[in-house]
Amino acid sequence: MTKFGPYLYTDDKGVLHIEGVSTTELAEQYGTPLFVFSENTLRDNFRTIREAFERHYAGETIVCAGMKANWGLATRAIIAQEGGGGDAFGVGELSVASMAGTDLNKVVMNGANKSEEAITAAIDSSVLINVDNLDELDDVNRIAEELGKKARITIRIRLPLNNCETGELFFDPRYPAGISPQYWERTFKFGLEPQSFFIAVERALAHQDTLSLEGVMYHGGLPRRAGKYFEETQELIETIAEVWKRYKFELKYLDIGGGFVPARYGAENTPPTPDDYALAINKAIVPVCEQNGIKPPILLIEPGRFCFDSACIWLSRVGNIKEDRNLADKKWVFVDGNTNDTKDPFDPYNRVRHIVIANDADRAGSDHVDICGQLCSADDIVTKDCDFLPPLKSGDLLAYLDMGAYNESYSCQANANNRSATVMVKGDRSAVVRRRETVADVLSRELLPSWLIDNRVSSKKEA
Amino acid sequence: MTKFGPYLYTDDKGVLHIEGVSTTELAEQYGTPLFVFSENTLRDNFRTIREAFERHYAGETIVCAGMKANWGLATRAIIAQEGGGGDAFGVGELSVASMAGTDLNKVVMNGANKSEEAITAAIDSSVLINVDNLDELDDVNRIAEELGKKARITIRIRLPLNNCETGELFFDPRYPAGISPQYWERTFKFGLEPQSFFIAVERALAHQDTLSLEGVMYHGGLPRRAGKYFEETQELIETIAEVWKRYKFELKYLDIGGGFVPARYGAENTPPTPDDYALAINKAIVPVCEQNGIKPPILLIEPGRFCFDSACIWLSRVGNIKEDRNLADKKWVFVDGNTNDTKDPFDPYNRVRHIVIANDADRAGSDHVDICGQLCSADDIVTKDCDFLPPLKSGDLLAYLDMGAYNESYSCQANANNRSATVMVKGDRSAVVRRRETVADVLSRELLPSWLIDNRVSSKKEA
Repeated sequence: MTKFGPYLYTDDKGVLHIEGVSTTELAEQYGTPLFVFSENTLRDNFRTIREAFERHYAGETIVCAGMKANWGLATRAIIAQEGGGGDAFGVGELSVASMAGTDLNKVVMNGANKSEEAITAAIDSSVLINVDNLDELDDVNRIAEELGKKARITIRIRLPLNNCETGELFFDPRYPAGISPQYWERTFKFGLEPQSFFIAVERALAHQDTLSLEGVMYHGGLPRRAGKYFEETQELIETIAEVWKRYKFELKYLDIGGGFVPARYGAENTPPTPDDYALAINKAIVPVCEQNGIKPPILLIEPGRFCFDSACIWLSRVGNIKEDRNLADKKWVFVDGNTNDTKDPFDPYNRVRHIVIANDADRAGSDHVDICGQLCSADDIVTKDCDFLPPLKSGDLLAYLDMGAYNESYSCQANANNRSATVMVKGDRSAVVRRRETVADVLSRELLPSWLIDNRVSSKKEA
Repeated sequence: MTKFGPYLYTDDKGVLHIEGVSTTELAEQYGTPLFVFSENTLRDNFRTIREAFERHYAGETIVCAGMKANWGLATRAIIAQEGGGGDAFGVGELSVASMAGTDLNKVVMNGANKSEEAITAAIDSSVLINVDNLDELDDVNRIAEELGKKARITIRIRLPLNNCETGELFFDPRYPAGISPQYWERTFKFGLEPQSFFIAVERALAHQDTLSLEGVMYHGGLPRRAGKYFEETQELIETIAEVWKRYKFELKYLDIGGGFVPARYGAENTPPTPDDYALAINKAIVPVCEQNGIKPPILLIEPGRFCFDSACIWLSRVGNIKEDRNLADKKWVFVDGNTNDTKDPFDPYNRVRHIVIANDADRAGSDHVDICGQLCSADDIVTKDCDFLPPLKSGDLLAYLDMGAYNESYSCQANANNRSATVMVKGDRSAVVRRRETVADVLSRELLPSWLIDNRVSSKKEA
């Protein structure tokens, strides 16, 4: 038996199981390609990060599990049961959070250019609005006035990160040449730099009939991954202290966003643990609060990948295999899934994924192949130069581990391809939580203009 | 008046028109973000390439307009009216080709790992199947036998490109370090190298009750763009001649795929014209045919980008504008569209797009901004470092030109974002051809397992 995770292991025949269910049976029952979530892994991941902050942070913590990483209704319902909230980037995510029974007091609405519709929905449902810029502050104020309601807001800040070295580079798959966490944080598209932040605070405090100013928001995804979580938190709590000093106004919430990288099975580097994060964040906050006589703010954290990544595997079936020792000296193994299911654009591990032969994990031997998808693109290679698996056979079932974050959200319908189903497993039970897309679904928005319906054979041109 | 294309021009107030319709009125009527197709531009593009081959090629040419570039029902109906076919990569694309009234004799089924369902549908509708590998040849044969029908097939070849220099590098946005067209063609995932190709030919000829061998398929996207269209065609026609010499069997079709790059408004480089391609291809084919006493094969060409690229613009509305001269020294202009609408992964111009202020194209001045979308990603920047537009104002309507290929096909629902609508314009008429996605559409595949419905507040774990 090999154990890949608390709920992921092989039996004595080398068949991969997720919780109490065999993956080969899942593939048989629901077809492939297939995403499979382990409910208990998701709950464990959520609890791990929540409990670390409960353990180490002097104030209260609310976990708004990152919706962009996974906005499935079922995964959301589980997060809601665990007492978690979410961060919504528009009415789509707000709707699913609401449908899943999420406590809307634990939902925040993010975005730099929120639609009228999104702001209205957020005010109507008393969701905390992370205001990105001054234009938006005015919009929120106007809409609240029109609705005769008070908008709960935080203001999103862009930090200077003055305590980070300027030249230091962080390496990320998206920026292969390396990037300075300080430069990244100072120049990216979200939030207001400190001077404008204080203008926004003053403007909000001048409209307390319509705007309930409740905190500051910051999402240091890249700086956090680069290890700057103490420095960024220190600047944040000093900002809160400064608001207190200038206006005798105490901000209730500190929303520090996500960017907590989970460990990944088979990966070399070991990221900081939730305890590391929580300890450092607490250590940055408490002295400044004591010094200024203010309470440690309620922390909102938005972990996405941390909750979802390891909770989901992706199953695909090997079909054709092609070997060419004449011209290319290569072997291609085709599976029935595509790169449209494996698009995670933020992957901190640069697609180093562990793959298990789900029907025969103990097979011996080695091979060197490209594992290819079925799209009309030379780049549709799910795993290029895979040299860590034994020889594959047609009919084999491959399980890609750590697929729960972003892959589904970024999936597309390239080649009018109907997207995968998703199954939730809990103990020995399983159920479809995202039904397999049909061709009819893919084509459901297509229409013909009258002139093409009426006169199908004409080819007249008009000016 | 500025003319950006035959059907794209500004009026004396600087308002951009597409065919006989004002873009500001389109945005008003249908909302933004919005793809807008010009039917007559699409027809013109199609005719340009078809007529070039009719003019210069000694045999017949069938234009199977590339479906992966655009599989819209309406664009397909127009191609069908023009007498064009398509290339389908599965049942989705085959379905839409069929719904659009395409002559199925002009449709080919591509793919390296076609599903049972796709092969069955292709045989049932007498579509030409481009067989990729020997496994697949056996599958097609078996399914044809089961159906009691004959499958029309071509066999996809991977060429050696012996006449291309080995070390020569071609620069492509996907391969920034440069790539050898010969290496690319020899090693990519599709088709059989010549020795296996001839094995496939022999196997097909041994099963003439079930397999109607009709030709050879090759798609030299990158080698063609690198200017190797004479060399590749020569190897292809010599392959056809070799089949004739060995088996006295004349292959009827030569499917040379797509990869014909169109000129793009505002871009520096000028690609070969359809006349250039057609002349070189004819010059490669005719002498070999004469020498061997065989007929020039019917050419199947699969131009996608050439037909669709310039036929479509993308409209988005400027919302919030944020300027920071304290920390970042930057200005961000947010629009109501996102990079999920601008994902074209094969763009040969590396996203050098011409952008027009559709409501005020003649505005003076200059500015330097990032044009940003609304997704929760620092990379959701539709145009980074845009320094060629005058200062933008909230409410401005931006038109991105040359957006008809791949952008819609690769669009995703990141952040549970509902995707754009598409409008077709012909003369002074307009109609929705892809309705705007709703939140209900986005969430239409979501389900809750019974145990999460029944017991919403429980959080028990099970093993």
